[in-house]
Amino acid sequence: MTDTRRDFLRTAGAALAAPLIAAASPPPNIIFIYADDLGYGDLGCYGSNLRTPNLDRMASEGMRFTQFYSANPVCSPSRAALLTGRYPTRVGVPRVLFPTDSTGLPDSETTLAQVLKQRSYKTMCIGKWHLGHLPQFLPTRRGFDEYFGIPYSNDMKPRPLLHNTETLEEPARLETLTLRYTEQAVKFIERSQGGPFFLYMPHTFPHIPLAASERFRGKSNAGLYGDVIEELDWSVGQVLDALKKHNLDSNTLVMFSSDNGPWYQGSPGRLRGRKGSTYEGGVREPFLARFPGRIPKGLVSKAVAGTVDILPTVARLCDAPLPSKPLDGIDIWPLLTGRKQQLEREALLYFDNIYLQCARWGKWKLHVARYNSAAYNPAPPGGRQNLPLPAPELYDLENDPDESYDMAPENPRVVAEIRARIDRLMTTFPEQIQSAYRESMARQVAPTAVGSFPRLGR
Amino acid sequence: MTDTRRDFLRTAGAALAAPLIAAASPPPNIIFIYADDLGYGDLGCYGSNLRTPNLDRMASEGMRFTQFYSANPVCSPSRAALLTGRYPTRVGVPRVLFPTDSTGLPDSETTLAQVLKQRSYKTMCIGKWHLGHLPQFLPTRRGFDEYFGIPYSNDMKPRPLLHNTETLEEPARLETLTLRYTEQAVKFIERSQGGPFFLYMPHTFPHIPLAASERFRGKSNAGLYGDVIEELDWSVGQVLDALKKHNLDSNTLVMFSSDNGPWYQGSPGRLRGRKGSTYEGGVREPFLARFPGRIPKGLVSKAVAGTVDILPTVARLCDAPLPSKPLDGIDIWPLLTGRKQQLEREALLYFDNIYLQCARWGKWKLHVARYNSAAYNPAPPGGRQNLPLPAPELYDLENDPDESYDMAPENPRVVAEIRARIDRLMTTFPEQIQSAYRESMARQVAPTAVGSFPRLGR
Repeated sequence: MTDTRRDFLRTAGAALAAPLIAAASPPPNIIFIYADDLGYGDLGCYGSNLRTPNLDRMASEGMRFTQFYSANPVCSPSRAALLTGRYPTRVGVPRVLFPTDSTGLPDSETTLAQVLKQRSYKTMCIGKWHLGHLPQFLPTRRGFDEYFGIPYSNDMKPRPLLHNTETLEEPARLETLTLRYTEQAVKFIERSQGGPFFLYMPHTFPHIPLAASERFRGKSNAGLYGDVIEELDWSVGQVLDALKKHNLDSNTLVMFSSDNGPWYQGSPGRLRGRKGSTYEGGVREPFLARFPGRIPKGLVSKAVAGTVDILPTVARLCDAPLPSKPLDGIDIWPLLTGRKQQLEREALLYFDNIYLQCARWGKWKLHVARYNSAAYNPAPPGGRQNLPLPAPELYDLENDPDESYDMAPENPRVVAEIRARIDRLMTTFPEQIQSAYRESMARQVAPTAVGSFPRLGR
Repeated sequence: MTDTRRDFLRTAGAALAAPLIAAASPPPNIIFIYADDLGYGDLGCYGSNLRTPNLDRMASEGMRFTQFYSANPVCSPSRAALLTGRYPTRVGVPRVLFPTDSTGLPDSETTLAQVLKQRSYKTMCIGKWHLGHLPQFLPTRRGFDEYFGIPYSNDMKPRPLLHNTETLEEPARLETLTLRYTEQAVKFIERSQGGPFFLYMPHTFPHIPLAASERFRGKSNAGLYGDVIEELDWSVGQVLDALKKHNLDSNTLVMFSSDNGPWYQGSPGRLRGRKGSTYEGGVREPFLARFPGRIPKGLVSKAVAGTVDILPTVARLCDAPLPSKPLDGIDIWPLLTGRKQQLEREALLYFDNIYLQCARWGKWKLHVARYNSAAYNPAPPGGRQNLPLPAPELYDLENDPDESYDMAPENPRVVAEIRARIDRLMTTFPEQIQSAYRESMARQVAPTAVGSFPRLGR
């Protein structure tokens, strides 16, 4: 039996054996707010100069994570992982989907919305879906009672604004979106206050092209990106206010994160890399979780966690049955309640498209491959391409969060340990993913201290 | 008359009218230590976890700059600027020189060593030259009495270790270099103690391939890069100790910086970009200056300054005549003595090869072009290529040091002002540089808030 399958069974077993919510207490409402292309360093509570008072307050009223990971550095795959609790390479969505694609998240996968429907949750998705834009892939076919939003990124055409499967507007007027998403969210909360409900709110911004409503445009003193962030922050405040107004505060878990690191604009803080990169700046994200009375106030967790953990955590919290397929995430409720500071978990994998690039284990991160960039010159035919590193690189993220000092040559045992863990985990992946990994590793030379680096043309 | 020429005349006139050193005091000794590919965040005194006690002490005994710029993000051009006080695009060294090149810094340019020879300085260059490896371009032809080092980067072949123009060893044993450079430096100080002397010490490391001597290998707890930095730090300590031993401390100006940002390893701190990039991480560098009794202890300067300022500053301090060609640098002695906190200066220009990419003016930095990277997909034929930005980007480096929030659309006047300054300055450059700039600007569209960005293939 694989470790992953064992994890799954352990989680499922625990859920069956000891439901966390007593039968008498009403099932909690769940809200997950997801920014698009927001950087680790873009919120006030993560050191930014941008003004995000509502998110900062949410952090101080709940828990803030400093090592929370999206499962992929780009949009579609990271969303696939959030909604399934499984790596995108496992669920058939390893790359961004385009309007020209006719695929989506396969029916064989179970979404968090489908999990919660089994407990009679009212469910709504508001915002950017990006897991298939054809009718059979839309949210209303994947466990959501209702959908309002754009089915893919705002830089894609023709950019319809949908209600369920119907087009309301095309192209959607970008500057109105955050406002209209927020109105929809507040209305959904109002009409669902009898509960329980699940609101999944993947915002369109700060993905480019940026746009803010008139009330926020030109107000941030940090350009249009700043205006957009301040409007997102306002939106979060409106959602929290609606909960308060309807006395739902103490029975609602609200979470906030982003799908991947910043693209052209936005700040990864002092992390290396941006959107599209498996350096930390591409995948480490803000994560806030607020549940008054259940999650302690103002704690900061340094535990390694990620979007793959959301489904198992929420399912257990809501006493809902887990999907039948093995999960990559684990139940992080013990972290959220402050009962535990760390949880044992398997190595965390970082993929670019179908290629495994890195693994995080404890304080260590091992890089084995990297996508083609200016560092590899000339570019391979076809542009972007994954390349195995001439030697693996090992970073100590505790002492070196910006991945600056390769410790691989001095730590062959750690390298071997993480490689063995990768090898074991890889056997659980589809054959295409395994063979892409084998091919990379076969091309890799032994680590040496000197001279093993790709040549740059300058 | 151009602004640059006016700057030059002002500087020269001031030097003639009011020599800073009274006739009686002996001319000061000058030492400039130059790391290779060291990041803005790689020293303890700049926030690193690496142990650099000697450089940290040098900072506390002198002045530390937080906005000091190399004139180019790669090796050869940044060295050309340091030694001439002029932009590399002005002196014919806009790009890295390779062993296959038969060019070097032209004889028509005057180096800082040549300037100081006119005041009878003993001069030595120890380390990586990289301004032409053929005999007619070597340091001994450019104002240095003596040379010991490798004429180009340590990743180039055949990598001879030269004494003057004679090959001592080929290829040079990398792990011995920092130690042998240091021995040479200490001996030069010993035999030149009658003074005045000028020691230019451009180290080979932390440019890759990395190597450290046995005493430092495996000792840093930050990989080989950390070992290398700790050995460099030790070397600086040896030089300072030699000054103390020979009672030269109070008459020697010692400076430390690096030629450009970090490459594969090394940390730019929280700055964006690395070696080869005109984002701050490619060009903003540590700069320490120590001159007991003349430079106040422990001050930190936020003034914008750079390697182009070294020649005019040192020339004036040593009462040496300036070269006949107009300089881009200014005399920063008023900053170094703490008499002034800011100096008026023209916009600072950032080039990539022959292409102007950015300009810094006050707190603002305007980007007008960028080299081809993964962000531009597919790569242009020939790989790396400069591309004008669809719209200029403007960053407020005071509030946004990591260049995350574009303020151009909201600040058309600032954009226009900096563009006008660039236009004026560009008229002083060689025709090839001017036409490369004109071509970029002609391809640029007007700034708009929405939709003006290059498409990325994902």
